[in-house]
Amino acid sequence: MTNYKLTLCYDGTGYNGWQRQGNTKNTLQETLETALAGILGAPAEAAASGRTDEGVHALGQVVSFRADTALPTDEILCQLRSRLPADMGALSLEIAPPRFHARLSCKGKIYVYRVWNSVAPCVFERRYVYQVPEPLDEPAMRVAAAALCGTHDYRSFCAAKKMKHSTVRTVESIDLTRCGHELRLTFSADGFLYNMVRILTGTLLDVGLGSRSAAEMPAILAAGDRAAAGPTAPARGLFLESVRY
Amino acid sequence: MTNYKLTLCYDGTGYNGWQRQGNTKNTLQETLETALAGILGAPAEAAASGRTDEGVHALGQVVSFRADTALPTDEILCQLRSRLPADMGALSLEIAPPRFHARLSCKGKIYVYRVWNSVAPCVFERRYVYQVPEPLDEPAMRVAAAALCGTHDYRSFCAAKKMKHSTVRTVESIDLTRCGHELRLTFSADGFLYNMVRILTGTLLDVGLGSRSAAEMPAILAAGDRAAAGPTAPARGLFLESVRY
Repeated sequence: MTNYKLTLCYDGTGYNGWQRQGNTKNTLQETLETALAGILGAPAEAAASGRTDEGVHALGQVVSFRADTALPTDEILCQLRSRLPADMGALSLEIAPPRFHARLSCKGKIYVYRVWNSVAPCVFERRYVYQVPEPLDEPAMRVAAAALCGTHDYRSFCAAKKMKHSTVRTVESIDLTRCGHELRLTFSADGFLYNMVRILTGTLLDVGLGSRSAAEMPAILAAGDRAAAGPTAPARGLFLESVRY
Repeated sequence: MTNYKLTLCYDGTGYNGWQRQGNTKNTLQETLETALAGILGAPAEAAASGRTDEGVHALGQVVSFRADTALPTDEILCQLRSRLPADMGALSLEIAPPRFHARLSCKGKIYVYRVWNSVAPCVFERRYVYQVPEPLDEPAMRVAAAALCGTHDYRSFCAAKKMKHSTVRTVESIDLTRCGHELRLTFSADGFLYNMVRILTGTLLDVGLGSRSAAEMPAILAAGDRAAAGPTAPARGLFLESVRY
């Protein structure tokens, strides 16, 4: 069996998230595995670096799978490109070391959240941004973002009710970049809890809108309570940008 | 009655073109006129700078309409933004001189055709580009583009069977710009015939793919015959960028 590392991009708008499960139709995992089985002539189980939720996009999701095939890597990639639907794209495929696993080997990830900060319509990118028409206090958001970095228990920024594992993570950076009407928030961490990027974004937008102050961030972290943080920003602005190994 | 000049953008993917006609459902004109009638409390007829075909997009379509209303311009614009569907955007609205008419006053237009020139998938912009996976001979395309500029009878580049009016137009420039995998063709002219930009693009792509030579362009123009030119490139790569008055 050969172990493969596949890098994928996708528009998550039309999918019920990454993970194939029970009766859930139209998942990204199932769509990919169907294409792979057609090429390989045998079922293949695809492990992603992490599940993305319903409506979340990926610029560089990493997936590993094992297969026993005589097809060269380039041929598998070419066939994948022709079999995948137009909203999923196979960016690259390479043979990985036998012990490589997209989720278990993951050392960190970068997510980007795109905010369209204008009353002007955003017609062509409407599936990929969250529109906030009110002006945002960016300096305050930067102060808050800095306070949310570091090694902390991020339980307040986690939507899961019961957590079996540690909720301590190291957020290396939260960068804000403005390009015209668009404000991009880029999050880099060794890992993220369930809905963590969207709750961090919702909290930072609260600061930008003036309904919270940047000085509250340490108390929100210390609370260890989801109710202390801001709302969960909508899925459509969120992109998994890249995975670090 | 006040005369208005409205600038619109739209994703043409879901529409049967600009023009409201007979039983054709889901036209851009009808969608706009329905929104305007709801705001103004009376029917309004919207005249565009020109009809865009089914599937063609606009970054800056200009529309004129007359209305008898006490609403300030900003209020009409704001209401339009909330009433138009997500794939149509009202960019600006201003009061125009009484004799201004979006089509009759038009002095020229700029269209852009977006080619995604790679085997790599183009997932996020898939509705807005035409994918050409083969390498393109750009220097040859530039020579051909230059030969297609000037004041000529462009009948060979017109899909209409019978032409009541002159088919002479002045194409000021056809520029090719590459940005990564994307090749953009920008056409500036005093006016365009039916399907002219898409046939010019199809002909230039033939040159880029080596199935025609740049030296054939004068003969194609001279033929005065649609059959002499290349294929009509798909609608989805075409954008009306701006209109000159």
